[in-house]
Order: sequence, then structure tokens, then C-alpha cells
Amino acid sequence: MKLLRVGPAGAERPALLDADGTLRDLSGLVPDIDGALLADDDALDRVRTAAAAGDLPALDAAGLRVGPPVARIGKVVCIGLNYHDHAAETGAEPPAEPVVFFKAADTVVGPHDTVLVPRGSVKTDWEVELAVVIGRTARYVDSQEAALACVAGYAVAHDVSEREFQIERGGTWDKGKNCETFNPLGPWLVTADEVADPQALGLKLWVNGELKQDGTTAEQIFPVAEVVRYVSQFMTLYPGDVINTGTPAGVAMGQPEPKPYLRAGDVVELEIEGLGRQRQELKPA
Amino acid sequence: MKLLRVGPAGAERPALLDADGTLRDLSGLVPDIDGALLADDDALDRVRTAAAAGDLPALDAAGLRVGPPVARIGKVVCIGLNYHDHAAETGAEPPAEPVVFFKAADTVVGPHDTVLVPRGSVKTDWEVELAVVIGRTARYVDSQEAALACVAGYAVAHDVSEREFQIERGGTWDKGKNCETFNPLGPWLVTADEVADPQALGLKLWVNGELKQDGTTAEQIFPVAEVVRYVSQFMTLYPGDVINTGTPAGVAMGQPEPKPYLRAGDVVELEIEGLGRQRQELKPA
Repeated sequence: MKLLRVGPAGAERPALLDADGTLRDLSGLVPDIDGALLADDDALDRVRTAAAAGDLPALDAAGLRVGPPVARIGKVVCIGLNYHDHAAETGAEPPAEPVVFFKAADTVVGPHDTVLVPRGSVKTDWEVELAVVIGRTARYVDSQEAALACVAGYAVAHDVSEREFQIERGGTWDKGKNCETFNPLGPWLVTADEVADPQALGLKLWVNGELKQDGTTAEQIFPVAEVVRYVSQFMTLYPGDVINTGTPAGVAMGQPEPKPYLRAGDVVELEIEGLGRQRQELKPA
Repeated sequence: MKLLRVGPAGAERPALLDADGTLRDLSGLVPDIDGALLADDDALDRVRTAAAAGDLPALDAAGLRVGPPVARIGKVVCIGLNYHDHAAETGAEPPAEPVVFFKAADTVVGPHDTVLVPRGSVKTDWEVELAVVIGRTARYVDSQEAALACVAGYAVAHDVSEREFQIERGGTWDKGKNCETFNPLGPWLVTADEVADPQALGLKLWVNGELKQDGTTAEQIFPVAEVVRYVSQFMTLYPGDVINTGTPAGVAMGQPEPKPYLRAGDVVELEIEGLGRQRQELKPA
């Protein structure tokens, strides 16, 4: 299923995009799309059954804002340098074990919402990423198979990054990863049963129409199953948590000088095979 | 006021500890102690007035668990190496600007709850910290005075840290800071009007009755007002967010070998002047 949330920020309603591309209202069936729903197999089955039976009212998509596909996200765990080609372009050795950092859940916005260039920023950069949404608590998971069973689904994430704040201002990367609006998510949460192989998804990102990133999750150093298993040894993952699994090559930081960092007025588009497309305009904070 | 939340985990009720040390029930007056309440001056005034008038029913404190004093915490921003003496004991230069890392809100537990030593951990360490609770949105705040106006109050935090995960496993510090139960908070949220000077508070921590940390917030490299102002340049702080402002000297990592890291069975007690006392027993995860 393609689950999404539509409507004004903070007042989204749950919806489903059916096989014909029609937007269907889920608000009569479930209160919202959040960790509680994703952990509730019975509720998900009711949605699946109603969709198959054609029982869900159609929604007029015209002019409807799309919000992030998950409400009340607990935490956003991020994996750094997780593609062979991206590690190379940043001049870093491929890590021996996953690099973990955080984005606060309050950085998450809808897939087409405005992204704000932070005040004082001269190095705002893009990163298309496969986001994993957790549906079952993952705590000291002991196999990659058990780890995959904790995944509710997948979505497109934009891990917007300010490189000066991230790298040149002391301390951890978190300082350059948590500016407001820095994590567009969506348009859909595609449930795991509809993603045959999370390690065979093409990812693309364009800036002002020019293709900048063109990768595949086959290039991930640590695949999704290993990322979930590994992270669960250090922290407990709860339903509604999100993991951004890293970005392929092609970010501004990896380009020759003058590096083409983002500015107000730029338009970024992102797409992952089967997971939909995002489009953001940048404005000053 | 001393605001707190009492009852079983996940089902706490709001309460107040009055000037006589009597626990008072706030559940007839406010739904909970969270960001929404802390941002609502009228609601806080109603609580203050009812407390002064003696209108609040007493609660029997016997056997009542104390939860974290804030519900639905958004994010926990942490400041590293923020005391001159702690930077020295870890062998680090005092930072030129605040070091920022994150704890997930799901690591927050009550002040007397069990702390779990992670599986495989041999370097679980303690850190007593002054926690700042945000009551007003802080975004590009331009003065320390305006920053302090965003602070709802203060509490004791225990920034439990696994040093091997934090430092020896690659990536940022976050990997060693986010194990479950790693952020006991409370017992109380003491509102900012009752903390005359946040830079003049003694902090103490004991392990199995032995005093290990004995510092003062006067030794902070970046005082609370500057921390809030600084952090607000990189991310937006919302009501109900928490900042752990760093720890003074005396952690296990700073001791001679063999360093006395925590083990199951140990008991840690923490106290900050005017903000109350915590006590945790350690158990295996």
C-alpha cells in the first residue's frame, strides 16, 4: 500500500493512493498514520481489505498539500557515508561499521514543502536517501532477517545538510543536520510487502532540472537489514521511528570549486524507484 | 513552582510539590505537564493561583513512582565538554564554540527508574547535568537575555554515556548516548522564576555512596543563556524540548586505570542545589 497524509501542516488526514492512482480517504477507518497504526497488523489489514473492496471514499487531490507520511515520528536516526561512491567523493574511508547521527523529528516536513536556507548558511547541500520506517520494536535484534521484519515500509527522504555547520563548527555532525525543514519525507510510505528488494532501488536528485545524484541502493555499504540490526544494538527502535540510510555520490560538497551549494530560489527534485517524487523550493529562513 | 508527574510509566498525572513539601494533584486543573502547558502563561498562572490559595487536593506520595517532569519531550539537545574541569579530565581542549549532540526523547525515564547497562557494555559512565526545559520557541534568538526568556525551568538530568560506543565505534558521539533508559530526568521541573541564578548551582553525583562529581554551574564554559542563544542559530527549540548543559569533572572516563565504569548492581545518586535528587539502580539490559 501507498499510505500518505494530506491537508494543512499539523492537520493532515490519513489517505491511501490506490492501484489506479486515485487518492482515497482513510480517516473513517484509522485516526492517523503513525507508529501505533504501523504496529497494528489488524488495523493495516482492515485498510488493505477496504482498499481491495473499493470501500474507501475518493478524495479530490487538487490543491491538497501532502504532509509527511508518518505522524508523531519519535526519532530520525541517520547513517552517514553509507554508499561506496559517496564516501569516496567526500574523501572519507568507507567506514568499518555504520556511522550514526541524528535528526530531530521536528525537522520533518512534507515532500513538497519549502526548505529554508539557514541564516548565515553558505554551504546548504542536498542528499537523496532511502528512509526506513519502523513498524515493530527493534531491540538487540540478532539477525538481518529479524531486522527486516521490524520494517513497516519505505519512503523518500531528503537529508538536507549544512556542511559548514556540520563539519567546521566543532562537535558532531548534528549541528548541520537539524535546521528547521531539513528533512522532507514522502510523498508516500510504501509498505514493505510492496518493496521486493530494498537493495535494488534507483535514487535520483535534480537541482534546477539538472541531474546531480543518480545512484542505487545496491551501492550501500551496509544494507537496510544490517543497518536496522546494527542500530538496535545501541538504541531501541520504536514503531514510528525513521532511519535515513545514507546518500549516494553527487552532493555539492563532492564537486569541484566553486561548489554549487543551494541558495534561495533553487528547486530540488528527488525520486526513488517506486517510492515517488519530491519537489522543494528553497527560501531564506 | 516545583512541577512533577507521578504514577506508572506512560500514565503519569501532573502534580505540584508545594512550599510545605506536600504533593498536590494538578490533574483537575491541567491535562499534563508538557510543552503546551509550559508555553501557556495563563494555565501556569491558574496553577500558581490555585497553589497559593490552597485549592489543590493533596496526593499520598507513599509508593508513588515519580516520572520525568515533562511529557512528550520533542528533542534532547546535549552540550559536550561544557565545564573547564571536565574538558581537562578528558584530555580535550576547551571548545571554541558549544559542542552539540543529541539524545532521543525516548531515552528519558523517571529520576528513580532503573538504568540499564547495555549488552556488551564495559564502559557505562555517569554525568550529572543541569537540564534546561524550553517554554517558548527559540529561533535565531539575538541576545542572551531573550534566550533566557525562552526557558520554562530547570531539572536534574543524568546523561548516562557508554564511552566505547561513544568514542571507539566510529561516527558521532550519538551511538553511546542513546541506549534505552540513558536519560533519567527530574524529580521536578523548577520554574525559572524560582532559580535566581542558573550559573550558581552546585551539582553532585555519588556512586554506591561515594562522591564522584562535585561541581558548580559557575564553571560552565558556555552559560545557559549563551547555550540557548547559540543552539537557536542552528535549530529551532520548541516548548517541551530539553537541553542537557554538560557535566563537571569526575566521570569514570577521567579516572586512572582501572576506570570505575558502572556495572549492574551499582547505585547512582545525583543532586543539584534546589532541583532535587535522583537515585538509580543499574541492571543488565
